[in-house]
Amino acid sequence: MAVKVGLLGLGTVGTGTAKILLDPTGRHPLVSDIEVARVGVRSLDKPRDIEIAADRFTTDLEAIVTDPSIDVVVELIGGLEPARSLMLKAIHQGKHVVTANKAVIARYGDELFTAANEAGVYVLLEAAVGGGIPVIQPLKQALGVNRIQAVTGIVNGTTNYILTRMQEEGGDFETILADAQALGYAEADPTADVDGLDAADKIAILASLAFGGRIKLSDVYCEGIRHVSAADIAYAERLGFVIKLLAIARRDICPTSNEALDQLQLRVHPTLVPDHHPLASVNGIYNAILVEGEPIGQVMFFGPGAGEGPTASAVASDILNIAATLKSQSVAAKAEPQNPLLACTHQHYCQVSPMTDIVSRFYVRLLAADQPGVIGQVGLCFGNHEVSIESVVQIDLHDGIGEIVVVTHEVSERNFQTALDELRASASIRSVPSVLRVL
Amino acid sequence: MAVKVGLLGLGTVGTGTAKILLDPTGRHPLVSDIEVARVGVRSLDKPRDIEIAADRFTTDLEAIVTDPSIDVVVELIGGLEPARSLMLKAIHQGKHVVTANKAVIARYGDELFTAANEAGVYVLLEAAVGGGIPVIQPLKQALGVNRIQAVTGIVNGTTNYILTRMQEEGGDFETILADAQALGYAEADPTADVDGLDAADKIAILASLAFGGRIKLSDVYCEGIRHVSAADIAYAERLGFVIKLLAIARRDICPTSNEALDQLQLRVHPTLVPDHHPLASVNGIYNAILVEGEPIGQVMFFGPGAGEGPTASAVASDILNIAATLKSQSVAAKAEPQNPLLACTHQHYCQVSPMTDIVSRFYVRLLAADQPGVIGQVGLCFGNHEVSIESVVQIDLHDGIGEIVVVTHEVSERNFQTALDELRASASIRSVPSVLRVL
Repeated sequence: MAVKVGLLGLGTVGTGTAKILLDPTGRHPLVSDIEVARVGVRSLDKPRDIEIAADRFTTDLEAIVTDPSIDVVVELIGGLEPARSLMLKAIHQGKHVVTANKAVIARYGDELFTAANEAGVYVLLEAAVGGGIPVIQPLKQALGVNRIQAVTGIVNGTTNYILTRMQEEGGDFETILADAQALGYAEADPTADVDGLDAADKIAILASLAFGGRIKLSDVYCEGIRHVSAADIAYAERLGFVIKLLAIARRDICPTSNEALDQLQLRVHPTLVPDHHPLASVNGIYNAILVEGEPIGQVMFFGPGAGEGPTASAVASDILNIAATLKSQSVAAKAEPQNPLLACTHQHYCQVSPMTDIVSRFYVRLLAADQPGVIGQVGLCFGNHEVSIESVVQIDLHDGIGEIVVVTHEVSERNFQTALDELRASASIRSVPSVLRVL
Repeated sequence: MAVKVGLLGLGTVGTGTAKILLDPTGRHPLVSDIEVARVGVRSLDKPRDIEIAADRFTTDLEAIVTDPSIDVVVELIGGLEPARSLMLKAIHQGKHVVTANKAVIARYGDELFTAANEAGVYVLLEAAVGGGIPVIQPLKQALGVNRIQAVTGIVNGTTNYILTRMQEEGGDFETILADAQALGYAEADPTADVDGLDAADKIAILASLAFGGRIKLSDVYCEGIRHVSAADIAYAERLGFVIKLLAIARRDICPTSNEALDQLQLRVHPTLVPDHHPLASVNGIYNAILVEGEPIGQVMFFGPGAGEGPTASAVASDILNIAATLKSQSVAAKAEPQNPLLACTHQHYCQVSPMTDIVSRFYVRLLAADQPGVIGQVGLCFGNHEVSIESVVQIDLHDGIGEIVVVTHEVSERNFQTALDELRASASIRSVPSVLRVL
């Protein structure tokens, strides 16, 4: 008997998903056992590039999530509401849910997974992070035997596209953003992407899976790329780095014993990445997620981070996984215990360290009076606050102003910011145009 | 109730696997439900760096695969026999099998999977390809909804290490092989690695999963790296390529209609990879597998291709997957239908194209009399056989011998070899020191 899918939304990803399910030849044989039974859309009159019988369409999304014949509800309408309520209703009706909605999962994951566990259904979300790249399933299954130490990702294609073009062309952020918008690589309102909010949603989801605990989205430190300048990219290149917007979830290490602590760092910020690092060569709209664990070491997943085809592949693969589970059950679904690798059973919230406690390397660019002794003064000020310096480069500028670029060793954020405040107040420092973290 | 594992072999990977299972803190909670119940070893007297009670050890491997209390047999003894027979016996006894044995799977996969399907058990093999990199599970699950077009991998760490060092140091194959042997990166008998046999086993396994059919190992064209010279690496670099040992499985495309045909190319050979290609920057002992499909596009999996920790991670993840399946069954395992994404149900053998039918780009290095008209003659000869040339570089050498490097467009192997035979017979061509394929 076919597994019946109710699609909520037939935009780009919904259409891509339906195309896969309606054209099973050459795919896993189980795909032909999946039926697009109902499709919920906003308008019945819109012409659509897909062959689905007219009587399967409805504008009544509630009718789909409560339809007793539907096994799997696929939520692809996006936004917080009514997406959240529809998913909850589907779960309460005993239906499995597949979604690409990172915003809902990052904010209401606890509510959804609690409801799903009570109802004995699965909520799968491969498409929520990294487009088509299989990363959610590997984190839940293949990598689960590891003690995960860190997940570091380039998880936003728009910002990676902008930073890559800034790197290649030497252009400024505003100019390239405008061009990316004209080309369709950035939204008219680019806030969610360029301010790091989309990446924050995604790292909250990845961290929850990697570290087996729930995450409060407000615990994720979030800094976007608006302030990254062409000058910083050029200096970084000179020092052997590229600048990437990284989303980082990392288990804190005790500075004295070097043991892993039971608290996490969760942060999204532009970062200087050494140019030999695996993430450094991930360019354009591509995404990559690097997972570090014991005993596996480093593994990286790389691919297109968005787009109809890749995202639809991820959605369809979740539907296939549920179909396979249903096919391998000899008794009614509700009577079966859940597969602990597909379900999301953790209940506690992860402890997250405040940013001031975090130890990191920093890059800072200072404008200073071009006079003897300034570098010494900068070094002294950092030294007074236990900020050890890895390199200092001074470039003569104009009008008696020199530009100084400092890269520190690993230092605590608190000490670094205190030293920086002192420098900002000093007479010979005119301004501090950029402060960035270094991987 | 704990899932009981019988380990066959306690070498590097066996020890690594046992270490994960015996130390579950910080891993997936289900790991603590897995018990290393019995361990089969060659010698009971050997001191071991692991805390397993002495009474769990035995030298009688048959006793483990027939022990009614054992749920999962983990085969880590390597080699063809008795590994194959022990796995078959375990399957006939209704036990699930986990193995890292690429040689047995590539040769006897059909026999093992047929037996497993009859017995209703799973044979999992994540560790057989790519060490710790999750690639088998994603191919079976996350990527199954795609029409796979190609799987291209750097799947042998030893050859990648040698080629990377040849590239970085400009050294010769024999010198660097000897050093790699001294450092433990290559075996005393390096045949399986440097002649491409290990990579052939692995691409046979990947192709079988990607294209949903069985593969005859003898259908895989296999060429190693012994003949790759420092000169070729230097010329390749000048032309914008790096040389990698690639394992390629690709669905053939009809040259006229451009449609995917129902036959495969299966080949292992040193290959010039364009230096901007995702596989070009995979260096040293690292492995990477690039999967191309419709509609996903390209995704790549990257990580350490060997070693105790990574390989043990893959073995333990297969055990975890089986444990999760057992935990989610409400009735006796044999009464349950198998999960079609974990089982291997395809029966037919894939059609594989003969190498002479394959269309590829070529790199060829010729030594010729350094006289006017030689390049013209080379061009004419290739042209007569419909071999279109992309670039020709002539380097003056010594003693009246010039070195000519030709890169062709995509041409049929048959036409190319015919043209090359003609050139070899020509008076002005002294020798053809290298012929390599170009990605």
